[in-house]
Amino acid sequence: MSRFLSPEAARLAPYTPGEQPVDMQYVKLNTNESPFPPSPRVLQALSQEEAGRLNLYSDPACGRLNRAIAARYGLAPESVISGNGSDEVLAFAFRALCGTGRGVAFADITYSFYRSQAALFGLEETIVPLREDFSLNVDDYMDFPGTVVIANPNAPTGMALPRLDIQRLLEANPDRVVMVDEAYVDFGGESCAPLVGQYDNLLVVQTMSKSRSLAGGRLGFALGSRELIDALNRVKYSFNPYNVNRLSILAGAAAIEDEDYFQSCCRTIRDNRAWLTGQLEELGFSVLPSQTNFVFAKSGKISGGALYRGLKERGVLVRWWAGSGRIEDFVRITVGSMEQLKILVEQIAALLEKR
Amino acid sequence: MSRFLSPEAARLAPYTPGEQPVDMQYVKLNTNESPFPPSPRVLQALSQEEAGRLNLYSDPACGRLNRAIAARYGLAPESVISGNGSDEVLAFAFRALCGTGRGVAFADITYSFYRSQAALFGLEETIVPLREDFSLNVDDYMDFPGTVVIANPNAPTGMALPRLDIQRLLEANPDRVVMVDEAYVDFGGESCAPLVGQYDNLLVVQTMSKSRSLAGGRLGFALGSRELIDALNRVKYSFNPYNVNRLSILAGAAAIEDEDYFQSCCRTIRDNRAWLTGQLEELGFSVLPSQTNFVFAKSGKISGGALYRGLKERGVLVRWWAGSGRIEDFVRITVGSMEQLKILVEQIAALLEKR
Repeated sequence: MSRFLSPEAARLAPYTPGEQPVDMQYVKLNTNESPFPPSPRVLQALSQEEAGRLNLYSDPACGRLNRAIAARYGLAPESVISGNGSDEVLAFAFRALCGTGRGVAFADITYSFYRSQAALFGLEETIVPLREDFSLNVDDYMDFPGTVVIANPNAPTGMALPRLDIQRLLEANPDRVVMVDEAYVDFGGESCAPLVGQYDNLLVVQTMSKSRSLAGGRLGFALGSRELIDALNRVKYSFNPYNVNRLSILAGAAAIEDEDYFQSCCRTIRDNRAWLTGQLEELGFSVLPSQTNFVFAKSGKISGGALYRGLKERGVLVRWWAGSGRIEDFVRITVGSMEQLKILVEQIAALLEKR
Repeated sequence: MSRFLSPEAARLAPYTPGEQPVDMQYVKLNTNESPFPPSPRVLQALSQEEAGRLNLYSDPACGRLNRAIAARYGLAPESVISGNGSDEVLAFAFRALCGTGRGVAFADITYSFYRSQAALFGLEETIVPLREDFSLNVDDYMDFPGTVVIANPNAPTGMALPRLDIQRLLEANPDRVVMVDEAYVDFGGESCAPLVGQYDNLLVVQTMSKSRSLAGGRLGFALGSRELIDALNRVKYSFNPYNVNRLSILAGAAAIEDEDYFQSCCRTIRDNRAWLTGQLEELGFSVLPSQTNFVFAKSGKISGGALYRGLKERGVLVRWWAGSGRIEDFVRITVGSMEQLKILVEQIAALLEKR
């Protein structure tokens, strides 16, 4: 470590992203990308003419994009903030809404990036274990006075909470914020977006990386009361005022406006997920009930680590967390195209046979 | 303010970006953009084929881009970190290299975003006044034990320090970091990039928003010892691991590799700056000696505010800071194309005549 590192930076818990191999061709089912290209409208928006205007700054307020998102969710543009991926939006929210006197609570098994952000902002974190079956009990959060962060559906389990549960949480304590990270909601969960007008203590965070096929465009957004969004903007304008680039603003707006393409992609993923779940169960796997574009599954015959390594050797990447306690025997598999999934299933079968 | 705002966020000092009008056509000389489109190689890199891959995440390590930058500056890729604009890179650096026990010092008149970042990270800041003639005296920083941040050339003055001055600062105290923000260095300043291998306490920050015509692509980078860059990466992976999008990675690499186009753009800006300076002086302005793509100038006949407002009414945007004390009678004018500058000079002349 550098002798120049600040004590605050020395205490950080940097996130480890899934492998993003640049050189070799894998069947890549490890980072929950969409197997489909972005909407044709996105490609149209990314014209050479627009590329030729990159000498000009982007709109720091992301007006074009925020208006498109607001229209899609029936909200005012002042209820929307866009970011360079939902990770950035989450960081704005963690800084804006958690701090001295207001800790943050989240599940023991969830998006591990929350811990990185809690460490970044020096937050007091309360880790709440999921139940034995990996379901989340909202009653565990009822008395927590600080900010509650819930990934719904959760990652990497894929399991979803009913909207009513979140609503109970919002009502139990109107003086604390509930942040709902809905990165995967479009694949079968119940979004809390319709509650935004009703509860001023609700922040909904979404991403365009999954259901909108724009992981490489880095786009996420939050929906909330005007006051909550103002709070996030205070952080944004202190951190990086021009946080979304020109082309991503255009790509995001075009993606949001192509509802048909979006619906069709989500439908295919749900169909493929059902097929994959059936196949894995036939191969003896336990598969958690997923409402996302991935499944979290465990074989009774092979450890999580052996499965991950065996598949990697065979050219298929899935995600596995070494040393992760009660989820160490699980792997997380992105629901890709049928072509990708057939290769995956074949390779798993071959791997199990060899043993 | 939201009742949910954390005390840390309540203390922020959000940055106010220059106006970015979306609807009306102005001669826009207020945010130091390049008047030239990006290199033709950038347009080539931003192909429909690449846009079609936006469903896949970008390389979090920005390998393609960092290698191109490293090659351009004769460094190892491990000495480079790229970001979503140099503002993001600066934020990584402020968090990584300043904190408890290590305050930060910068000039009273400089890029005002440093204050936003100091507030964001709760840093103890030491503000060092420039001399009466707006020059920076490095001797004022010799004894400062914490991190020193120097914009070279400085904004909004446009004035540059010789590299030797920075070198003296680096040598005076090898136990503190000197961050040199070289956003404008390509237009005539002396870059400290060649010193990176020599001093492990030097961090050089640059942007592609000005000399590389990519303000809308949001790209900046830092050069430093491997240890310093590692420190910045700790923060990046705690804040936003996939911080640069796919298309900007490609655009940035292409821009860096087109040295001829870059040189030719910088040359034209220098020529236009000389012309503009002459014209303004003929109109009775005092113009600070600029090594940047803007000039900082003051009329003896009209206040800064009146000039800013008068030009805006006439369709020309320049930057002016209300309530800014000894620079309140100055305006900052971007060195645009000759066509833009001729309109500017005409409008200034007309404005002065009317009085």
